[in-house]
Amino acid sequence: MHRSVSILGATGSVGSQTVRLLQAQGGAERYRVRALTGNGNIALLADMARALRAEVAVTADLARLAELRAALAGSGTEAAAGPEALVEAASRPVDWTMSSIVGVAGLAPTLAAAARAGTLALANKESLVCAGALLKATVAASGAVLIPADSEHSAIFQVLQGGQGTIARLILTASGGPFRDWDRARMATATPAQAVAHPNWDMGRKISVDSASMFNKALEMIEAHELFTITPDCIDVLVHRQSIVHSLVEFADGVQLAQLGAPDMVGPIGFALNWPERSALPVERLDLAAVGALTFEAPDAERFPALRLARETMRAGGLMGAVFNGAKETALEAFLEGRCGFLDMADHVEHALEQLEGWAARDSAAAGREAVLAADAEARALTAERIRRRVA
Amino acid sequence: MHRSVSILGATGSVGSQTVRLLQAQGGAERYRVRALTGNGNIALLADMARALRAEVAVTADLARLAELRAALAGSGTEAAAGPEALVEAASRPVDWTMSSIVGVAGLAPTLAAAARAGTLALANKESLVCAGALLKATVAASGAVLIPADSEHSAIFQVLQGGQGTIARLILTASGGPFRDWDRARMATATPAQAVAHPNWDMGRKISVDSASMFNKALEMIEAHELFTITPDCIDVLVHRQSIVHSLVEFADGVQLAQLGAPDMVGPIGFALNWPERSALPVERLDLAAVGALTFEAPDAERFPALRLARETMRAGGLMGAVFNGAKETALEAFLEGRCGFLDMADHVEHALEQLEGWAARDSAAAGREAVLAADAEARALTAERIRRRVA
Repeated sequence: MHRSVSILGATGSVGSQTVRLLQAQGGAERYRVRALTGNGNIALLADMARALRAEVAVTADLARLAELRAALAGSGTEAAAGPEALVEAASRPVDWTMSSIVGVAGLAPTLAAAARAGTLALANKESLVCAGALLKATVAASGAVLIPADSEHSAIFQVLQGGQGTIARLILTASGGPFRDWDRARMATATPAQAVAHPNWDMGRKISVDSASMFNKALEMIEAHELFTITPDCIDVLVHRQSIVHSLVEFADGVQLAQLGAPDMVGPIGFALNWPERSALPVERLDLAAVGALTFEAPDAERFPALRLARETMRAGGLMGAVFNGAKETALEAFLEGRCGFLDMADHVEHALEQLEGWAARDSAAAGREAVLAADAEARALTAERIRRRVA
Repeated sequence: MHRSVSILGATGSVGSQTVRLLQAQGGAERYRVRALTGNGNIALLADMARALRAEVAVTADLARLAELRAALAGSGTEAAAGPEALVEAASRPVDWTMSSIVGVAGLAPTLAAAARAGTLALANKESLVCAGALLKATVAASGAVLIPADSEHSAIFQVLQGGQGTIARLILTASGGPFRDWDRARMATATPAQAVAHPNWDMGRKISVDSASMFNKALEMIEAHELFTITPDCIDVLVHRQSIVHSLVEFADGVQLAQLGAPDMVGPIGFALNWPERSALPVERLDLAAVGALTFEAPDAERFPALRLARETMRAGGLMGAVFNGAKETALEAFLEGRCGFLDMADHVEHALEQLEGWAARDSAAAGREAVLAADAEARALTAERIRRRVA
């Protein structure tokens, strides 16, 4: 089935980008182009009409009808001119219309397009600015769907719409923790007191150390993989020192949607408590102008091996998450008690993943809680023994 | 009606912030607190149980039951201890549970909470990391609702959910245009050639000048007001030089959701064309680590009076949008033809708004297209005559 489309203001900036996109997405093979309209650029309008095999091409300038007719000779595209022809062309039934005439000149054709069902992509701001109530009443009466095509209003529309469309990538942000600027040699000497000094979040002692090693982010990668059923290769981590963008979702069209707020756990706790409502919370209001800048860096895989280990754990699947976590918890406790170095924690986890890969064949839903705890216990015993041997 | 709640791991960091939030939102007057659980901090657990009039308080440490019982003497709160009591308490039916025990120790109580209907706010990552399939199967079987309480996963959940909840503010981003760093004296001398040199977006000539004066953003404020039915005082403009965050929505709880992408009109055009699907588009993929920093500044009301005029236009309502736009289009053409200075454009629009305020009493839906065009024509005639007198 061909989708029928019209472009009002095809020769302008937005209009010609729309024509190019139609061509990139299949052109006349996929779309049945009814009306293309323009103003003074007759040659471009005729070229577009030929390329897309448009049914009618209209110039707003009545005086240039003969010129347009000549330019379209033999193309099969009808030529028309003048404001009334513009409105007539806009009124022809189509599945989708781009309204991209600039200025109040776009009002009459936009209203004509809104008066029949179909999707109306609106780049002509003036029809809303000058006649918002009238345009909305016209859309409501016809059952048309109004989709803003200005980048700002499209952004708001997309944010309000939420997760419609294919997810391409989840991007978990990470503050980078207190050692984000330390080199590996210095990290090897890190003490528990240094590791619990988190720059942004007020957290417990164990989570603070996990944040310093990015084992916390590693757990969160696996958590996201489970929660949102996303393949491991489509989960990325982005270092964002201000902890204001709390994570992002990238969609198939390259768009990213993000959630922002003050770095305060009352935000997510309050969201979960008050859901599906959103109530006022005792958190600082985010003022991006006062913040000034949000920065982003790729995480350093060399200094934070936990991220690679998380990806390997997800790829292996089964109960390897329990092995990963059991080894991590054991190594973390040893670090807090001074029995293991900071960088050794990742080494112990990697060792457990290698030694206990048989747990990848078991599934928690099928095997049940006891199997999960058995995998956890085995990882703990293996890791504790290895730490003991190293200390001895 | 009291909402019944339990907190597993109440004395930890997330748990105690949950307790504080419950207290801030009405405490025992609003919530019926069933179970609070903790580990070694008996005094804090008992204090919380008294403050929230909990039905039962449980310490995971069996050896400390007597101590907990003593601390709760006379409070009306039952005391219990040990892993089995923890699971029993987690199994009591409630509307909402916070699962915030740290580590795999949280697995059994989380699974117990998931096994009965109600909302499960999940801060215990390990139950998903170690037993994701089992937890999800348990939730699916009981009909519980799982809401992530980690800030990152809450962010993703919120982004996917979209615009649920009360909108507090729309924040339209603006590149600031080519004159964002010019002072007023220099702006007064700006030529059309300087004004069309937009830093980020490839746009038509008129829109580029409107961007330099921020009249484009002023039109967008009015457009947003109409499209999303938001009161004028809740529409803000934020200067964001990179044009990557295309706009933000702030909700009643202080959360902001944003849409990001390359500054390329193919994004919003393609979104409107392919909606409700999202298909791959010929746009550059956004890599925030490569971008490095996103900056934000408040716009300068002194140098960009268009923003104030837009707000006044929205507040006045009726057909003042048509007056605003008619005067603006006339002044813009005069500027492009060298008959009016750059800063004079705002002065002419302000004059038209003052002189033609009678149009505020007319509504476009009731009065129809002819009235809109009459308001437009009157604003154009008034402005053209004023420009003519100044040139003469």
